[in-house]
Amino acid sequence: MNSGGLGRVETQRVVTFSRDDPLVLESGATIGPVQVAYETYGRLDEEASNAIVVCHALTGDAHAAGHHGDPRRRGWWDSMIGRGRPIDTERFFVVSANLLGGCNGSTGPSSPDPDAGRPYGMRFPLFTVRDLVTVQRALLGYLGIRRAHAAIGGSLGGMQALQWALDQPGEVGRAVMICASARLSAQNIAFSAVARSAIMNDPDFRDGEYLTTSRRPETGLSVARMMAHITYLSEESMRRKFDRRRHEPESKTMTFEVDFEVERYLRHQAQTFLRRFDALSYLYLSRVMDYFDPFGDPSLDLGSVTTLVRAISFDSDWRFGSAHSRHIADVLRTGGVAVEHVEIGSPWGHDSFLLELPDYHRAVREALTQEAPRPTTLSRAPT
Amino acid sequence: MNSGGLGRVETQRVVTFSRDDPLVLESGATIGPVQVAYETYGRLDEEASNAIVVCHALTGDAHAAGHHGDPRRRGWWDSMIGRGRPIDTERFFVVSANLLGGCNGSTGPSSPDPDAGRPYGMRFPLFTVRDLVTVQRALLGYLGIRRAHAAIGGSLGGMQALQWALDQPGEVGRAVMICASARLSAQNIAFSAVARSAIMNDPDFRDGEYLTTSRRPETGLSVARMMAHITYLSEESMRRKFDRRRHEPESKTMTFEVDFEVERYLRHQAQTFLRRFDALSYLYLSRVMDYFDPFGDPSLDLGSVTTLVRAISFDSDWRFGSAHSRHIADVLRTGGVAVEHVEIGSPWGHDSFLLELPDYHRAVREALTQEAPRPTTLSRAPT
Repeated sequence: MNSGGLGRVETQRVVTFSRDDPLVLESGATIGPVQVAYETYGRLDEEASNAIVVCHALTGDAHAAGHHGDPRRRGWWDSMIGRGRPIDTERFFVVSANLLGGCNGSTGPSSPDPDAGRPYGMRFPLFTVRDLVTVQRALLGYLGIRRAHAAIGGSLGGMQALQWALDQPGEVGRAVMICASARLSAQNIAFSAVARSAIMNDPDFRDGEYLTTSRRPETGLSVARMMAHITYLSEESMRRKFDRRRHEPESKTMTFEVDFEVERYLRHQAQTFLRRFDALSYLYLSRVMDYFDPFGDPSLDLGSVTTLVRAISFDSDWRFGSAHSRHIADVLRTGGVAVEHVEIGSPWGHDSFLLELPDYHRAVREALTQEAPRPTTLSRAPT
Repeated sequence: MNSGGLGRVETQRVVTFSRDDPLVLESGATIGPVQVAYETYGRLDEEASNAIVVCHALTGDAHAAGHHGDPRRRGWWDSMIGRGRPIDTERFFVVSANLLGGCNGSTGPSSPDPDAGRPYGMRFPLFTVRDLVTVQRALLGYLGIRRAHAAIGGSLGGMQALQWALDQPGEVGRAVMICASARLSAQNIAFSAVARSAIMNDPDFRDGEYLTTSRRPETGLSVARMMAHITYLSEESMRRKFDRRRHEPESKTMTFEVDFEVERYLRHQAQTFLRRFDALSYLYLSRVMDYFDPFGDPSLDLGSVTTLVRAISFDSDWRFGSAHSRHIADVLRTGGVAVEHVEIGSPWGHDSFLLELPDYHRAVREALTQEAPRPTTLSRAPT
């Protein structure tokens, strides 16, 4: 077993944009102050050249590795980050920040709106993946980092890594995007739309003003989470984990109560989720994904992209399956970008990116340590 | 084009079980009176030998073919049933009944509970696919039919056709089950569980007592329907229909309102659904499917099954894909039953069973007209 897990870590906070010098979003709207909650692991080298930006997914947070006091409760990517692990803290300085729009220490729709004296709610402006990267860049600037060795993340995290490479190729050496997408499918958007519908039509949502009440749109957020959870697992992995087992194996009666193990699991997951996540952040960060379409951006200039890119996908992932990663690689390659697509065999679906799978970890380690693209990927399309 | 559509048809009603002589469910619970709403198409021959029982799916009803006055609004299987159509009303007498537990004329949880003087609500007993067949048999008896030429249906309808063959092989010559399952997967159950959670936790559900209030659990039922609708379509069919098109093609702004066409479509489908379907029926009929497991029934006796069986599936169906039909065929064949599995190529997912697809219609027509099983399917497993 890998024994290089980090010890106790602390979440820190910094104000990256003030009220007087606010964050200007891609839409032109402004937000200020913007606070960012972040953790770092490892040590920044003297040239400030060994930073890796870890970007989290829809419901992640800054706490990617180590623990906050209870060694049994570790960060969401603890298997990936540590001494000797693929994101090796002996070599790299890892920066992991809660996203703009999040609910775990960074400014988001549940933060106080300084103009209104109460939480933003739905007055928080909609933002883009590019805006998420802008805030991460401000944090790196604060930490004295002008150029990151790599940006890496899974799902929405991979979208940020891609945006880094497209927008700031001079500031990021490598981009590793895991089970990401550059273009949600109609089915992807549909699932998100149903989730948002469940939240926004929950009477306790109150047009987003629930934070000043004693209630939360728990039914809606719980339904959203359970539905999303199904899409994170493959049919095969659900069969292996639950099949048709009953919670009470000898049960012979029918009931509308929780009876099948899979029902119990989903309900438990939802209850846990309600304690740690906010419905408004769910709305905003899922909508960011719907609109993400960097290759449709008229200002796209692939010719300037010098970042080495690796897209990793899992063959059983049906949320952002290999076709999404292949599409990213095809577009980048056609544009002359050094890109590889690696498909990993795994039965565990989209959630594979959180698991300790040897082929996957090897692919991440390689992507972070390779010094030059392989010649075969340097095919520039005829113009 | 096929021009053999039926004209105006009427829904009829009959009380198949009285309060004094109630329906005894598989669980031992009783319901009475039980009313059945049904339609018939074609003419019963003198020997009463040409009846085909059409079994509807989760949200279907008795109105399978023809129209009720507006020729543009036709039954859910109008392309399948009519003069010269696969279920040929020149030859067959078609019986289509609203299921027990339904909400379109047959007794279900929204019907008056004679003991309580108000709708049953959640006091309606849970029932099984076998109970659905029992009620259909009672209707056939009332119509003077002792043996049906065939039972046929898609999805939950196919489950009923299978149960007919297993329980009453002497009363049904052929069973045609289309995109059905004999064993919901963990993923199938999970989607249903989330749908029920959305309905039962809607504050307007009021533990199922909403029918005596002015409100309905519309948020929950709408979320359930939209989520289910996604599972009825293939990713490919959603891409073809919607891709990432905006409702306002020139829109450049981001919004939480309906923006993508797929969002508009789902919302419209949900609104239409709310007008025609009841949340309690949705709960009961979806739970029937979760528990359906006829091959796990200790009383199963495949040796007695003389019904000719055809299972039809669609290659793009991911709700009850071909693996489900293959499983049915494998178990039946191993048990010595004359069974064929036909997989149809179609990009349209589970909903293909409602569409006019030439290969599919041919497969249904053949299944209803073949007189004897092909020798190759008559393999009895060694005992």
